[in-house]
Amino acid sequence: MEGEPTRVMIGVNESTIKGYPHASISSRGAFEWTLHKIVRSNTSGFKLLFLHVQVPDEDGFDDMDSVYASPEDFKTMNLRDRTRGLHLLEYFVNRCHDIGVACEAWIKKGDPKEVICYEVQRVLPDFLVVGSRGLGPFQRVFVGTVSEFCAKHAECPVITIKRRADETPQDPVDD
Amino acid sequence: MEGEPTRVMIGVNESTIKGYPHASISSRGAFEWTLHKIVRSNTSGFKLLFLHVQVPDEDGFDDMDSVYASPEDFKTMNLRDRTRGLHLLEYFVNRCHDIGVACEAWIKKGDPKEVICYEVQRVLPDFLVVGSRGLGPFQRVFVGTVSEFCAKHAECPVITIKRRADETPQDPVDD
Repeated sequence: MEGEPTRVMIGVNESTIKGYPHASISSRGAFEWTLHKIVRSNTSGFKLLFLHVQVPDEDGFDDMDSVYASPEDFKTMNLRDRTRGLHLLEYFVNRCHDIGVACEAWIKKGDPKEVICYEVQRVLPDFLVVGSRGLGPFQRVFVGTVSEFCAKHAECPVITIKRRADETPQDPVDD
Repeated sequence: MEGEPTRVMIGVNESTIKGYPHASISSRGAFEWTLHKIVRSNTSGFKLLFLHVQVPDEDGFDDMDSVYASPEDFKTMNLRDRTRGLHLLEYFVNRCHDIGVACEAWIKKGDPKEVICYEVQRVLPDFLVVGSRGLGPFQRVFVGTVSEFCAKHAECPVITIKRRADETPQDPVDD
């Protein structure tokens, strides 16, 4: 029953509280859940595919006080974004390496929900794991939810892991 | 990383084409997917919990031409329903036994979507697997979908396994 490992795509993003390169609470939750409940001791049976989608607008926010005087300034910015994304992925890849689970990780830019669904089509994982803040309907109206969109539109089975209640930060929209 | 096995609840139902005690295409699909993609060779790491919800009305349909003259007739009917449900579960339990995966199976009566969510609350599985016919929005209006309801309301992670395109019967509402 072994053969090719089961390929699990996991969408990961940065924390809104601690900032780059810290993984969000729900990303870490989804990852740890996958390790403990699915992979378990069968480390050779799975390959984890980490996708981090950087939101261009969100990053621009940090640059409010920056001055852009030349094309070089933008190159520096892109390089810095890249470095941050890589640090985020490093956390997950290191964990996998320590445990002995095969993995791949990559970064894309765009709208996370759209890009995740597009990457599912391209990479064809066996299933997709996404973390969710578990917001109520009122909060969802304002922040949208990547997990709901993916569960509906991704062309593979999707499992949504809600953030544990005891890990909810003071503002539940934070993660 | 082992310890207690991961408890996976799987909702199973009968085929609308072949009738009891044949499992529906989507139930079998969800079960086989769980074995091949999640359990794999780690048979001691998982325990499968099969829940079959019998719909009282649906069964009544077969009894259109029956005559009920005494309380005994109803007892016979209940016994017959019970026997059919047990045969359905037998299929899944036998497969698990052959492979060496621990399992439990039980029958409840009621509205499948409500009962599955209720049983999740009672039994607290690590996650729930449900099959889906993968109907389009137009077809869904008329038949409702158990998987969509469970994905939204069940108090545990839910993974929906769509029926494979090459297994779709002539009438996609059939299963």
